[in-house]
Amino acid sequence: MAGNSFGQLFRITTFGESHGGAVGVVLDGCPPGIKITEDEIQKELDRRKPGQSAITTPRKEADKIKILSGYFEGKTTGTPILMIAYNEEFESDDYLELKEAYRPSHADFTYEAKYGFRDWRGSGRASARETLARVAAGALAKKYLKEKLGVEILSYVDQVGNVKANADFEKVSAKDVEANIIRCPDQKAAKEMIALVEKVKGEGDSIGGIIQGVIRNVPAGLGEPVFDKIPADLAKAMVSINAVKGFEMGLGFRSVGLKGSEHNDPFEIQGGEIRTKKNDAGGTYGGITSGETIHFRVAFKPVSTIKKEQDTVNRKKQAVKLSAAGRHDPCVLPRAVPIVEAMSALVLMDHYLRHKAQNA
Amino acid sequence: MAGNSFGQLFRITTFGESHGGAVGVVLDGCPPGIKITEDEIQKELDRRKPGQSAITTPRKEADKIKILSGYFEGKTTGTPILMIAYNEEFESDDYLELKEAYRPSHADFTYEAKYGFRDWRGSGRASARETLARVAAGALAKKYLKEKLGVEILSYVDQVGNVKANADFEKVSAKDVEANIIRCPDQKAAKEMIALVEKVKGEGDSIGGIIQGVIRNVPAGLGEPVFDKIPADLAKAMVSINAVKGFEMGLGFRSVGLKGSEHNDPFEIQGGEIRTKKNDAGGTYGGITSGETIHFRVAFKPVSTIKKEQDTVNRKKQAVKLSAAGRHDPCVLPRAVPIVEAMSALVLMDHYLRHKAQNA
Amino acid sequence: MAGNSFGQLFRITTFGESHGGAVGVVLDGCPPGIKITEDEIQKELDRRKPGQSAITTPRKEADKIKILSGYFEGKTTGTPILMIAYNEEFESDDYLELKEAYRPSHADFTYEAKYGFRDWRGSGRASARETLARVAAGALAKKYLKEKLGVEILSYVDQVGNVKANADFEKVSAKDVEANIIRCPDQKAAKEMIALVEKVKGEGDSIGGIIQGVIRNVPAGLGEPVFDKIPADLAKAMVSINAVKGFEMGLGFRSVGLKGSEHNDPFEIQGGEIRTKKNDAGGTYGGITSGETIHFRVAFKPVSTIKKEQDTVNRKKQAVKLSAAGRHDPCVLPRAVPIVEAMSALVLMDHYLRHKAQNA
Amino acid sequence: MAGNSFGQLFRITTFGESHGGAVGVVLDGCPPGIKITEDEIQKELDRRKPGQSAITTPRKEADKIKILSGYFEGKTTGTPILMIAYNEEFESDDYLELKEAYRPSHADFTYEAKYGFRDWRGSGRASARETLARVAAGALAKKYLKEKLGVEILSYVDQVGNVKANADFEKVSAKDVEANIIRCPDQKAAKEMIALVEKVKGEGDSIGGIIQGVIRNVPAGLGEPVFDKIPADLAKAMVSINAVKGFEMGLGFRSVGLKGSEHNDPFEIQGGEIRTKKNDAGGTYGGITSGETIHFRVAFKPVSTIKKEQDTVNRKKQAVKLSAAGRHDPCVLPRAVPIVEAMSALVLMDHYLRHKAQNA
Repeated sequence: MAGNSFGQLFRITTFGESHGGAVGVVLDGCPPGIKITEDEIQKELDRRKPGQSAITTPRKEADKIKILSGYFEGKTTGTPILMIAYNEEFESDDYLELKEAYRPSHADFTYEAKYGFRDWRGSGRASARETLARVAAGALAKKYLKEKLGVEILSYVDQVGNVKANADFEKVSAKDVEANIIRCPDQKAAKEMIALVEKVKGEGDSIGGIIQGVIRNVPAGLGEPVFDKIPADLAKAMVSINAVKGFEMGLGFRSVGLKGSEHNDPFEIQGGEIRTKKNDAGGTYGGITSGETIHFRVAFKPVSTIKKEQDTVNRKKQAVKLSAAGRHDPCVLPRAVPIVEAMSALVLMDHYLRHKAQNA
Repeated sequence: MAGNSFGQLFRITTFGESHGGAVGVVLDGCPPGIKITEDEIQKELDRRKPGQSAITTPRKEADKIKILSGYFEGKTTGTPILMIAYNEEFESDDYLELKEAYRPSHADFTYEAKYGFRDWRGSGRASARETLARVAAGALAKKYLKEKLGVEILSYVDQVGNVKANADFEKVSAKDVEANIIRCPDQKAAKEMIALVEKVKGEGDSIGGIIQGVIRNVPAGLGEPVFDKIPADLAKAMVSINAVKGFEMGLGFRSVGLKGSEHNDPFEIQGGEIRTKKNDAGGTYGGITSGETIHFRVAFKPVSTIKKEQDTVNRKKQAVKLSAAGRHDPCVLPRAVPIVEAMSALVLMDHYLRHKAQNA
Repeated sequence: MAGNSFGQLFRITTFGESHGGAVGVVLDGCPPGIKITEDEIQKELDRRKPGQSAITTPRKEADKIKILSGYFEGKTTGTPILMIAYNEEFESDDYLELKEAYRPSHADFTYEAKYGFRDWRGSGRASARETLARVAAGALAKKYLKEKLGVEILSYVDQVGNVKANADFEKVSAKDVEANIIRCPDQKAAKEMIALVEKVKGEGDSIGGIIQGVIRNVPAGLGEPVFDKIPADLAKAMVSINAVKGFEMGLGFRSVGLKGSEHNDPFEIQGGEIRTKKNDAGGTYGGITSGETIHFRVAFKPVSTIKKEQDTVNRKKQAVKLSAAGRHDPCVLPRAVPIVEAMSALVLMDHYLRHKAQNA
Repeated sequence: MAGNSFGQLFRITTFGESHGGAVGVVLDGCPPGIKITEDEIQKELDRRKPGQSAITTPRKEADKIKILSGYFEGKTTGTPILMIAYNEEFESDDYLELKEAYRPSHADFTYEAKYGFRDWRGSGRASARETLARVAAGALAKKYLKEKLGVEILSYVDQVGNVKANADFEKVSAKDVEANIIRCPDQKAAKEMIALVEKVKGEGDSIGGIIQGVIRNVPAGLGEPVFDKIPADLAKAMVSINAVKGFEMGLGFRSVGLKGSEHNDPFEIQGGEIRTKKNDAGGTYGGITSGETIHFRVAFKPVSTIKKEQDTVNRKKQAVKLSAAGRHDPCVLPRAVPIVEAMSALVLMDHYLRHKAQNA
C-alpha cells in the first residue's frame, strides 16, 4: 500500500536505503520445493552490480545476497523468503553537500516534499540499489518458469544514444547478450555503443538508451481482463525501474501511423497450431497471452548523476552549483538488463500463479 | 485479484460484457460528502459514447448511468457506490459468425485459451464498452480533485496517423479540446485529422494515434517509492485501456538520445518557489510529484475491427474470411480522450488518499 | 480497503443500503464454467429472507436476485459476476423519527461519527439487508465446493437464550436443520426454542443464541500460516455478521480450563489414514486443515430493535424515548443460519483457490 | 496473499522459522517522523521473551531486535522498516525425533499436508517465535497511537485454568499488570494462578486461560462497514495468535442468554458528551468505534508441548510415543499479553490510517 510491494500472489516487498543497514526483499507466495542455491541468485546479482566492467561505475559493492528464511535443505519451503544484502561502511562526509542541495533530476526535492525530511546519504530509498532486491526475487521466478514451463526470459540493449542494434528478438540468445559489456547482441553495434559510453564518460556526462524485453515459450491464456492485462502489468513493472521514461508493447508507438488493415495480424495454422502471422501485437490480445513471444521496449533516460557542474537550489531556496563527487554510471543500460529480466519474470510468475488459482 | 479492480484506496471494480445485462462499477473508498449529480457523470459518459459525431461509430447506445447505492440527498455517503448502465436489447444473430471464428487482433482466441470458452456476443468482457465504467468513476475523482485541490485534468488528441498537432500542453484548455469532433486543440491539425479519419472510414479501414495527458496544479509530494510511482501507476492505467500500445512520461522515448547534461532539469527559484526549468521529466522525480504539470503520451494502435475482408481461422482450425458486419469506429482517439482523463483522475485520487493516510 | 470486500482470490464486494436503489455483490475471481441457475441462488436467499415464518419479522421483501454479468448460457464465465436485488418502494415517513434520534445499540451514532452524516432511512449500510449479498455469493462457492471437492457446509441453531440443543455436529443433516422454523436439528429443543421466541416476541423483546458451524469432508492442507489461518479467517468472517459477539473454534472457551494432557488430541491410524482421536481442535492445526471436520460456534446477541420503549438521545444531545415502529425479528438465529453457511463457503473457497495457486 | 501479512495501510509482513537464520518483520506504511529507539522496542520484546521468569520456559533466547532500514537519525522515514532478530545456533540433533513423528495438536502433520514437506527443526514457521515480529511492529503502532491520539492499549491475564481474576478493565493499570509474573492485575488471583502453573509444570503438563484486551481513549468513528469492522479485525488478529481458540467482544458469549431489553445500552449525556450507559457492546456499534473503551476476551488452549509421554503416529503411519525433549512453557498466557497488545495496536493503527485517508 505504501508502494514497496509488487505482485499479488508471488508478492515481493523490498526494503532498504542506499546507506542504511541493508537492502533486501521478503518474497511471500513462492511455491514450495524450488531447488535453488544462493550462488545461482548471486549470479544474477553480479550482472547488476556496480564495478563489473570499464563502462559501469567503479564503485565497489559486494552485493552479497543471503537467504535467511523460507529455505531448507536447498529448497524453498513455501513460507516467506528473506533475502538480504548488507550495506558496506561508508563515509557520511561524502554526502554532506547533498544534505542541503537538491540534485537536478533526482528525487531529493520530491522525497522531502512527501515525507517532510529525507535520508540524505546517497539517494536513500530512491537509490537504484533497491533494484538488487528485485533481481534476487526475479531469479527465483525465472528459475521456476524455466523449469516448470520452459519459459525463456531475456533482455538486451537495443539502443544507446542514437546507436541502434540490428537484432531479431526471436533469435537472440543469452550468450549473444553476455558476449560484450554493453549487453547488446549485435556485436558491431555493441562496439559503437561502448565507444559512445566511453566518450560520454570522458565528458563527465551520461547517455540514455532502450532495452528490448523478450519472453519466449509462454503458454496461451495467461493474464487477466481489463486492468491486470499482461501489457499493463509489464508497463507498470518497467516504468517503476529507476530512469525509465517509456514503455511500448509490440510495435508500440510505431503502430500509431498504421491503418488497421496494415497492423492487424491474421491468425493462421502453422504446424497444426493456431498462430499469428507477424506478432506485431507483442504476444497478447485483450491483455492475455496468445502463445506468441512477448516483446516490448523500455526507454531509459540518461542517468541524472553527472560529473559536470550543474545549477540547482538548496533547502534554503538559494542557488548553488553541484558536481557529483561520487562514482557513477555513464550509462545504466548494461546493468539494467537483469533488472528488466527480473521484472519480466515477476510479472509472468504472478500471472501464472493467478492462472492456476482460477483455472487449473 | 482477477484483474477487474483498480486503485488501492479509491478502488473501482468494473463488471459487465458488451451484450450481457449491464456494464458498471462499484466504487469503494470514495470520501463521503462529495456533491455530484447523475447528470454531471452522464456528461463525461456522453463524451465517450458511440454515435456522438460523424467520425465515431454510428452505433446508438444510450449509455445512461444510474447510481444505485452509496448516494443520499445528492452526496456520496462514503459507502460503496454502484453505477450501472443497462445494455440494450440486440439481435444475437448479428454475432453468430463470431461464435466460431477468431477475429484478427481481437481477444476471441486468447479469452478462449484462458477460460475454456467465451461469451461470443460482441467482444464479451474484452469490449471497450467496459471503459464507460471507468469514466463514471473517474468523474467523481475528477470533481473531488478539482474542488478540493484545484487539480485540472485534461487530455487531447496529439496525433492521428501521421498528422501531428502543434500544441503547448501547458496552455491547452478544455474548450480548445472540445471545439472539434476529433478533440485536438490545434484547430488546423484537427481538420486534417478529421479528413484523414473520414478517408480511412471510406476505405473500411481504421487508423491509430496519440493522446497527450495533462494534469495541472498537482501538489508536490504525491506518489509512493519504488513500485507505486506515479509514472508507473499511470503507465499501468493507460496501457490497460483497449488498443493502447505505448506510454511515455515527459520526454519519454525522445530522451534516450540525450546526454544527462542535456536532459537534466535544473531547479531554480521562480516567484519564491522551487521550480524546475523545463519539466521534461513530466512532473515527477523518483516517482513522486514535484508540483510541476504532469504530462505523458499514450499510443493507440488502429482499431482491429475493420470492414475490409480479412483472413483468419476458426475454432476448428479452418482458414476462413471475415469482414465486420457491425458498425465500428474508424479511429477511437476522440472517444478515448475522456477515458485517459478518467484513468488520470483515478490514479491521482488514489495517491492523494494514500498521501492523506500516511502523511496528513 | 474501505471494508466492503471479502476474500483474496474469490473476492466479493457488496454494496447497497436498506433503502437505496439496490443491494448486491460483485464477485471477482469466480472460476469459469460453474453451472448454476438464478433459482438455485434464490433458494439460499429464501432461507435468509424476512417473512418466511411466524417467528421472523413479518416484513415482506421479495429479495429477488438477478445476475447481470459474468454469466453466459447457464455458466459462470470467469469474469465479474454482478448479482443484484432491487429494493422496494417504501415510505420515508416511517423513518423520520430516526433522522434525529440515535437508536440504542444501533450504528446510527457511530456512522455519523465516522462519515459526518448518515443515510437515516432504516439502518443504511449497517442494515443486515447487506447479508443477502453474502448469501448470493456464498451459494456459488457452496456449489463449487460440493461438486468439485465433495465439501459439505452446514450450520444450525445450537442455542436460543438458555435453551440448548443436544446434537452431534458430525451427524446432523441439512434435512434435520430445515425440519423446523428455528433451524435446530434437535426437534425437541427446537420446540422449546420456538416457544421462547414466541414469548419474547409477545413481550416486544428479542433474544440471542448460538449457531454451530460445520464443514465436512475438507481436504487436508488448506489454510495459510501465521495470519490467514483458517480459524482466523473464519473468526473475521463470522464476527463481521451483524449481531455477532463471539467466535470459538473447536472446544473454544471450554478449553481454557483443561490441561494439555487432557486437551491434546493423539494422532492415530483409522482405516489406513492418519486421523485425530477427538477433533477438539475444530479441524485445523497451525491454522491449516487436518482433514477432520471443521467446527466452530458463533454467538449472537439479542437484536437491538425491540418494540419496548427505550431511553436514548438525539443529535441535539437531548434525552428522548424511542420504540420501534417497523416490524423486526425477535430472534435472528434462524435467518442467520444461511449467512453463517455462506461465510463458511466464502472462506473455504478462497483458501482452496489460494492452495491451487501455490501448491497445485 | 500467502498469509504472512497483516494490515492494509500499516502493513506488516513477518518472516522466519524457529531455527532458520532469523525472524523478523517488514513494516510498510509507517508514517514518517515517529521518534523511537531500538531499546523501546526491545522493552516490549522482553515482555514476550522466553526465560523471563520461573513460570516461563527456561529456554534462553536473546531475541535482540535490530532495525536495518526505514530509520534515520532516531526517526522512522516513511519507507519500509526491517526489524530482525537473528536466531541462535542450536543442535539439530535435539529435533531429530520430530523429523518423522507428528506431535499431537501441533502443525507438523498439517504443514506437511500443505507444503509436501516441512522444516522439522522445532515448529518451523508454525513456531510462536514468529510473534516476536508482531510485538516489534506493534511497539511502533502503540507509541504512535499513544503520542498522537492518547490511545492506551493494555492486556492482562483474566483467567488461568479455572482461576479467575476479579478486575475492572476500566481501571486496571499497566503497573498492576506488570506487578507479578503471571501478568494478572488482581494480585490475589495472580498468586493462585502462579501456584496453579507451578503445579501443572511439576506434572510436566500445561494449562490454558483467558486474556482480557482493553483499548482506552479511542476516538469515535474508527472502523469500516460490513467486513472490516473493528471487532471482525480484532477477531482475526487474536485468533491468528498461536494457541488461541476463541474471541469475544464485550459481553460476547454471555450475551446470548439475554433479552434485547436487557442487553441494549441506552445512550445518555454524560458531562455534555454522548455516552453509553454500560458499554457491554465492547466499544463499537456496527463495527465502528463509539468512543467508549474497547474490550474483548481471548481464549488460549493449554500449550500442546508437554513433557508427559503421548501417543501419536509418524510419517510411515506407525504408532509411536513422544515426550517433549526441549524446554517449554507450562502456560503461555503471561508471554502472550504483549502479543495481544501488539495485535490490538496493529488493528487500531491500521484503522486510524484508513480513517485519515477517507475522512480527514
